[in-house]
Amino acid sequence: MPSLEPISFARGAPSADIMPAEALRESAARILRDDPAGVLGYGVGSGYGPLRDWIAERHDVEPSNVVVTNGSLQGGVMLFDLLVEPGETVAVEAPSYDRTLLALRERGADLLAVPLKEDGVDVGALEVALDEGAAPRFIHTITNFHNPAGCTLSLEKRHRLLELAANHGFLIFEDDPYREVRFEGDDIPTMFSMDTSDSVVYASSFSKTIAPGVRVGYLIGPDDVISAVTRAAVNTYISPNMLVEGIVAEFCRSGAIEESIANVRQALHARRDALADGLRGYIGDEARFVLPQGGYFLWVELPEEVDTSALLTVAAERGVSFVPGADFMLEGGKNALRLAYSAVTPDQAEEGVRRLADALAALREGAPAA
Amino acid sequence: MPSLEPISFARGAPSADIMPAEALRESAARILRDDPAGVLGYGVGSGYGPLRDWIAERHDVEPSNVVVTNGSLQGGVMLFDLLVEPGETVAVEAPSYDRTLLALRERGADLLAVPLKEDGVDVGALEVALDEGAAPRFIHTITNFHNPAGCTLSLEKRHRLLELAANHGFLIFEDDPYREVRFEGDDIPTMFSMDTSDSVVYASSFSKTIAPGVRVGYLIGPDDVISAVTRAAVNTYISPNMLVEGIVAEFCRSGAIEESIANVRQALHARRDALADGLRGYIGDEARFVLPQGGYFLWVELPEEVDTSALLTVAAERGVSFVPGADFMLEGGKNALRLAYSAVTPDQAEEGVRRLADALAALREGAPAA
Repeated sequence: MPSLEPISFARGAPSADIMPAEALRESAARILRDDPAGVLGYGVGSGYGPLRDWIAERHDVEPSNVVVTNGSLQGGVMLFDLLVEPGETVAVEAPSYDRTLLALRERGADLLAVPLKEDGVDVGALEVALDEGAAPRFIHTITNFHNPAGCTLSLEKRHRLLELAANHGFLIFEDDPYREVRFEGDDIPTMFSMDTSDSVVYASSFSKTIAPGVRVGYLIGPDDVISAVTRAAVNTYISPNMLVEGIVAEFCRSGAIEESIANVRQALHARRDALADGLRGYIGDEARFVLPQGGYFLWVELPEEVDTSALLTVAAERGVSFVPGADFMLEGGKNALRLAYSAVTPDQAEEGVRRLADALAALREGAPAA
Repeated sequence: MPSLEPISFARGAPSADIMPAEALRESAARILRDDPAGVLGYGVGSGYGPLRDWIAERHDVEPSNVVVTNGSLQGGVMLFDLLVEPGETVAVEAPSYDRTLLALRERGADLLAVPLKEDGVDVGALEVALDEGAAPRFIHTITNFHNPAGCTLSLEKRHRLLELAANHGFLIFEDDPYREVRFEGDDIPTMFSMDTSDSVVYASSFSKTIAPGVRVGYLIGPDDVISAVTRAAVNTYISPNMLVEGIVAEFCRSGAIEESIANVRQALHARRDALADGLRGYIGDEARFVLPQGGYFLWVELPEEVDTSALLTVAAERGVSFVPGADFMLEGGKNALRLAYSAVTPDQAEEGVRRLADALAALREGAPAA
């Protein structure tokens, strides 16, 4: 058999063709001309001022409510260091982002897994747990185009979650990196924008709207939380990356970011469509999924008897990869898989699903090799 | 009195005129043209490959012995997280870098302060402590052009410290950001380069050879230590800043870094000379100092009765600032001060010392205002 060009649905990363290298080059040239001292000197722990201001304006908050970090994961990690003592209960979604689960586990959090539904986290299940005495310090929730599940938290549930947080005294960590990558449907207001009881810390980043390699993320939240994270930042790295934050600030100020977002949306919309069409055509009803309205990921549930870890081995021999669902779960997820369409062309998406269908058939026939 | 343009000897940072904005602009343009996918995608926890390779070659080690971090402080902090349990003994220099002392204290380290001499840390005093039963996990030492003390660890003491580390089973954390900023005298080999027992973890950065705003530092050490720090890095921020590391890699590859180092050395040499001449001329024998052969800092001891915290207040009214010595000490240092000459022109250095001498005279006359 001739070796195939591998097709990866595994990594949640954009392909090079949708990352704005040329516009970043221009932004770098301008900022190094216009503010060399600002981007080359030590900065402040809260981030490059003009970028912090831009983010604050975009989210309609004061700059003092914003801390810019070296990627949003680092912001989250610093927040966890502040909030999580060993044995502390933290509510998480099942499935959820594996790095967040790991960071919480490493800090000794007692994880309370709340299932996801088509319209986001099962707030009713959370309420039952709270009524039974669970007292989480916070809930971590990925609200738009979930990683890995692809779903989006409904407006009604956002309101209910805010009520529960206010009544039960827990925080909501609203993790929202995909918000701007919406292909269709209407934006839903963030919980942060509707919060009236200082219950929400909001996280986002420029990884999906510009490029992951810039490693620029941010937290927005109540003054006291943001001040504490900023102090931790200073003690960890003095200041975040001033040069890149300057480049990103100029990229935003110049309007290049709107063009980049439009470009990403259009490309990923086509990729999602090709993937979803491929699943319907090659696998059919056995592949159950909620069509994501944006973001990078499509979560597929196969019939219960299919072990997606075994499927991965057979699929890899056919030149296609993905992440088994169990990697995102505290338990279960054995018949699920995450397909990232962010880095494949529409043609690759279709061919990848064809190979996946072939692998599924082979797995069932007990024929591990093609 | 007309208000004076303030002169700061306080912050250990370079002035804008010695930071290579134009060469960085060119490096950014080239790397975004030549390797857009590499610098814009998620990278690996150990840093941008070509930069890691350049550092490895420069220090004559394997790339597997290098991890590139978001500034060297963050590398140190991740190392401390691995090595320091609460109650662990860590030997530090007195005086030492305040952020390092704070990071160690925050992790519950039991600090063993070892005095500095003109030729670096007092290895004899350390040996006495070891013989009396002290069992540090590691010693933190700033070997060249110490911050804040300006001194450099002699070759003989480097050998003795390596012997002690091997015999007593502690690590040496060789913190060496200023090495390349030598004005005069011969380079002294790093302890890392002479180590035969995997006793040394070496830290440096590009803050002093390029600019602090790039926030790129690195650790070099035994494979197991570097692997552990790299895992911590991945769990903290996925990968360090790929875009800036790409720019720095191109800056190094192109040779721009040699020009930048030559430029920094020349400028800081002149600034040090102006400061030292000023101290001799305006304050005279009462200002005792070891002339640093490189780096950013000159450490001054005034007569014992002078409280440099009180002096700072009087000096600030005269438009000059510095950092009192006590800020760098676990105890003592009340009559010392750190003067950073990295951000002042030679003319400013001279004028700054004139104001300082004036403040000292006023303090002694009990006249707090000019």
